[in-house]
This record gives sequence, C-alpha cells and structure tokens, in this order.
Amino acid sequence: MSNKVTITDVARKAGVSLSTVSNLLNGRSKRMRPSTEQRILEAIEELGYTPNQAARQLKTGQSAIIGLIVPSVANPFYGIFARHVESVALKLGYQVLLGNSDRDPAREIKYAEELWGYGVRGLIFGSSLFNVSHFDNLISRGLHVVAFERPTQEADGTRVDSVGIDNHLAARLATKHLLSLGHKRIGFLSGPIQTVSRLDRLSGYQSALRDAGIQSDPDLIWDVSPSENSYGDADAVDLGRQGTQELLSRLDPPTAIFAINDMFAFGAYAGAKDMGLQIPSDLSIVGVDDITLTEIVRPSLTTVRQPIEKIATMAVNRLVARLEGKFDEQQDHQILPPQLIVRSSTTRPK
Amino acid sequence: MSNKVTITDVARKAGVSLSTVSNLLNGRSKRMRPSTEQRILEAIEELGYTPNQAARQLKTGQSAIIGLIVPSVANPFYGIFARHVESVALKLGYQVLLGNSDRDPAREIKYAEELWGYGVRGLIFGSSLFNVSHFDNLISRGLHVVAFERPTQEADGTRVDSVGIDNHLAARLATKHLLSLGHKRIGFLSGPIQTVSRLDRLSGYQSALRDAGIQSDPDLIWDVSPSENSYGDADAVDLGRQGTQELLSRLDPPTAIFAINDMFAFGAYAGAKDMGLQIPSDLSIVGVDDITLTEIVRPSLTTVRQPIEKIATMAVNRLVARLEGKFDEQQDHQILPPQLIVRSSTTRPK
Repeated sequence: MSNKVTITDVARKAGVSLSTVSNLLNGRSKRMRPSTEQRILEAIEELGYTPNQAARQLKTGQSAIIGLIVPSVANPFYGIFARHVESVALKLGYQVLLGNSDRDPAREIKYAEELWGYGVRGLIFGSSLFNVSHFDNLISRGLHVVAFERPTQEADGTRVDSVGIDNHLAARLATKHLLSLGHKRIGFLSGPIQTVSRLDRLSGYQSALRDAGIQSDPDLIWDVSPSENSYGDADAVDLGRQGTQELLSRLDPPTAIFAINDMFAFGAYAGAKDMGLQIPSDLSIVGVDDITLTEIVRPSLTTVRQPIEKIATMAVNRLVARLEGKFDEQQDHQILPPQLIVRSSTTRPK
Repeated sequence: MSNKVTITDVARKAGVSLSTVSNLLNGRSKRMRPSTEQRILEAIEELGYTPNQAARQLKTGQSAIIGLIVPSVANPFYGIFARHVESVALKLGYQVLLGNSDRDPAREIKYAEELWGYGVRGLIFGSSLFNVSHFDNLISRGLHVVAFERPTQEADGTRVDSVGIDNHLAARLATKHLLSLGHKRIGFLSGPIQTVSRLDRLSGYQSALRDAGIQSDPDLIWDVSPSENSYGDADAVDLGRQGTQELLSRLDPPTAIFAINDMFAFGAYAGAKDMGLQIPSDLSIVGVDDITLTEIVRPSLTTVRQPIEKIATMAVNRLVARLEGKFDEQQDHQILPPQLIVRSSTTRPK
C-alpha cells in the first residue's frame, strides 16, 4: 500500500516544498518551525511513506548500517561475537550486515567497497593480517574502521581504532599454567602464523618458555602455509586434529598443547584420541576464547577467556561515536586483559 | 586514485556519449558495436573507474548481493550454512550479506526492507514461523525468497521457494532408532514449538511412538514460551541443559532424549551431568544437524544429518536462477532426505 507513495505526495499533503521534506528526512530540521515539522510527520504517517534508502543515502552518504567482516562464522567465536555486535548496534539504531572474508584482503576490500557504495561508513573488522593498507583508500575518504583482533601496528599508516585482548599475555597465561603443572615439552598448535594476533600469541608462548629457562623447539610449533588452507578458520577442527597427530608423532613428542583457539583445541581432542591418548593424563590441552562448548566437551576445556561481549560492546560504541561525530580523538586502542579458566583438560605430566 | 573518476571521464576518454557508457554498465550492450564496447572497457580500465553502486542500482534496481537471514549465527549450524552459501554465491558473482533475526518478524522485515532499499532482490531465509506474510509486500514488488528451513505451507499466499530436509522424517528416524534400542520413555527437547520445522519434528516423533504402540506423554515434551526466550536459538545449550534437568526430575523420567538440534543435545549432555547421569548408559541422546562438533564431544553424538552443503548449494542456485530470469516456474520445493548417523550417545536402556 505505502510503496507508491513518494516524497512529492508527502510535500503536497503537508503543503510544503519538496526541499522542506527532504531537509527533515535528512536531519536538517534545526531551523524548521515545529508546526511544519509536525505537519510533515503527520503526512508521512498518514500516507505510509517509506523513504527509499538508495535515494536517501545518495544524498546523505550515510546509512544506518554497520558492516562486520570476520574470518569465518563457521568458528562459533565469530558467530557469538556477531550476535553481541548486533545486539548493541540495534539498541543504537543500527543494523549489522556481516561478511566472511577468510582473511583474504581481496574479499575484505570487495565487501568494504560494496558496503561503501551503499553508504555504509563504519566497519568492524576481525582479520589481523600484518598489512591493512588495502583499506587506506576508503579510510581516506571517510570510512571508519574498528578492528577487534588486531592492535594497530607501528608500520600502519592508516587510522584504525582497535579493541581486543592482549594476545601476548593470553599465550603467556596458558603456557605458564602448563609450565606450573610441570610440562616442559609444550606444543604450539595454530593455523598459519601470519596474522598479528597469532604472532603475538607465539611470542607470548616463547617468552613464557624463556622465563622458565626452556628453549623453544621449532619441532613443537605446528602450523600450515596459508596457500594450502586459507588461514584455517573454516577448518580449524580438522587442522587441529591433523596438527596434533603430527606433533604426537615426533621423536620427542609434547606432553601438552597450547592451541591457538578453542576450535583448534577441539581438533586436538580428536587427534589425541586418534593416537590412543587420554586427555589430560597423557596430554594436557589449553585453548583460547572460551566459547560456550568448552564446558560441554569431555573433559571440559581449560582455556583463556576473551571477554567477547565486552569487546563487541566497546567496538560498536567506538564506531558509532565516530560515525556520529562524537569522538574525534587520534587512533584509539583498547587492550583488555584475558583470563585463564582452569577446567579438566590440564594436569601434571606422567 | 580511481575515486574521483566519473562516468563522464570514461565517456570523454572513449569518445562516446554518457548514455552509451551507461548502457554498457547496465548490461544494455546488445546493439553496441564491438569496437565501441572495447573502447569503453579500455577507458574504464585505464582510468580505474569504479561504478558507484548506489547510483547504479538506482538505475537497474539490482545489486550483486544476496541477503541471508538466519535465526542466529551463535548456532554453528547457521554459521556453517552461511559459509557454504557464500562460497557458492561468490562463484556465481554474488556477495552475501547476513543478518540475524532471532526469528522476530519485525527484524526480518526490517532487514529485508533495508536490503531492498539498496537494490537487493534475492533473499535466502532461515526462519520457519507459521506465517511469512510479512514478506508479501516485498515479494509482490519483485523480491525472490528461498527458504531453507521451512517448506511452504498450504495457507501461504506468497510465492516462496524452499529447499530443506523432511523434518517429520528426521524426527521419525531419531525416535525409531531409540525405540529399536528398547527405549519407551523418550523425551522431546526443544525451543518454543512454534515454528514449522519444530512442529514437523514433533509430529514425526509422535508418529514413530504411535507406530510402536506408545502413547505420547505431554510430560516428556519440553519447550519454553517464545516470549521468555525468543526462540531459543542463541541460548540453545543453556535451554537444553535446563530442559534436561527438568525432564530428568519427572516422577517417571525419560531414559532417552530426542533433541531438536545438536546444540540442544550438547545442552542435554551438561544437564545429564548436572543430575549425575552417564551418557549413554543412564541416558541416550540424539540430535539433529550433524555439525562438526558432534564427533568431538564425548561420547560422540548420534544425530540426524542435514546435508548442509547441498541445501546451501541448491538454495543459492535456485535464487540466482530466479534473479537472472532463468527460472520462472511456480513455487519450487525441494525436500531432501535426512540421514541417521549412529555414534556413541545412544544404547539400550538399563
């Protein structure tokens, strides 16, 4: 019924000019008489007028949509994160459109440009490649980006806000926990170690070993090359399983594994079983993230918790403040503390 | 570099009129001389011209984007489904934008209208409420919808294609498996039984019981009202846990539980443990979906597999054929067979 109604109909019914209606629709109503505004709003309601988004955003260049780009919602961590982002955004009057990128810069920029073309000016961004210069152009034109998995690097020329945990510390906490139980051969299980967050976790793992006087053994660090397996986000369980089988087949195998995230840790559960080992008596395992399922698997998973809801809330709030011109400081970086949650997948080595 | 380049620059460089360039950009090049087309394409490439999406879709009313609305990517089933949809769509030249609806018709239509405003004309839709008339208006204006969780109902006035499993059969397979093991007290564990797929599963469960001469006991059917908990998609594990605790507290408790999906089944694992029961010796559990984690939990989960990748592939293919005018039959409904996967969470009752 309302769909053939145009802005012209509204103007006619309210007895005002087209540009007056347009001003109101585009938020330029400061100097408008209240009675005029009232008449237009009544006309809009009576006629059931719905502004055409494409036409509207061509004028304002803004859209009440936030883009969210994550590596892969096949990992429940990103699914849960997306839910929280959406829930906060809806309260602030924004809808969220989500795309998976597999951390492929070509797909990331394709999504960003597509969304930009529709007037989207704010992006929450979950990859963590070393280089994010593919966004430079859009950012220089006004795109706001908040990264949640990648603290800004010194080499970045680009203005990107970030919110996230201290990845170095997360890995230190996990590794120190295993060291304190008496483990000396600790595996590091990951997808391609070619993202900022993974490299930070590797350095945290290595620094904890160093503090304990243990030399890091390259034989115990397992990853794959990104060309074979993308970045391992969509097939984390399979990769974790394969990596664990291989680590356990070393001449001097690990007695514990630090997995880059919970999905890799679940893969390690399967890999340990394939090799006939019991968790935790034969092999201790620690993950990162603390997704819902960590309490459901048996044994329940010791992990380093990311405050997912808090990260999502802060990222949306920062982005919306940027979009609405309420925050105009320099790059803003919030680093949150991770928390070790000890459950049943870790114990002393035999 | 390329961002200030306009269609006017392209026309000037190619030595043609604005409308000739516009015709080519909008796919109206049939009567164009090949040499003209060639000149324009070269000019576009040399200048690095990127068509403005908003301007383009105002003209064509079409956008190379498919919308995907799911209840909640917090359930890995929808996350995995979204991945497959995206992978097929990308090959066909479409990007996918995803929204969570929590099965709330108001949010569903808000997403659909927002996407419509940007020129999106195709939607893959994952809710399964009884009534989908909130889409009627957009469908009458040209929106194509393919539902993957909801076979079209007789009462629907609306043209919606569908692809999905036979939900009645899925529940029958699960229930018959439990009956064949000797179970007679079988619980039905679900979020609000107020969607087409859940009601179909309830009827499949009941028909299997009836075939075995067992009367369905309302005390063994557990759900919640949607007002309290939405439809239970985002908190499936918690609901499954709570429901299992309550079912096991009945005077004559079940010896087996059929859970509406794997996430509810994982919740049942936790609920059984809370009550001090072992799976499967004290309680057998069957789920639906067969998400990756079913093989990782201990015991591994007996479940009814949905062919997720196949459903996603068929849904995208159907939708793109509609969008591109290559399929113009009446409503098209594809029903795929589910498959029982017996693992370690089911055994004979004590």
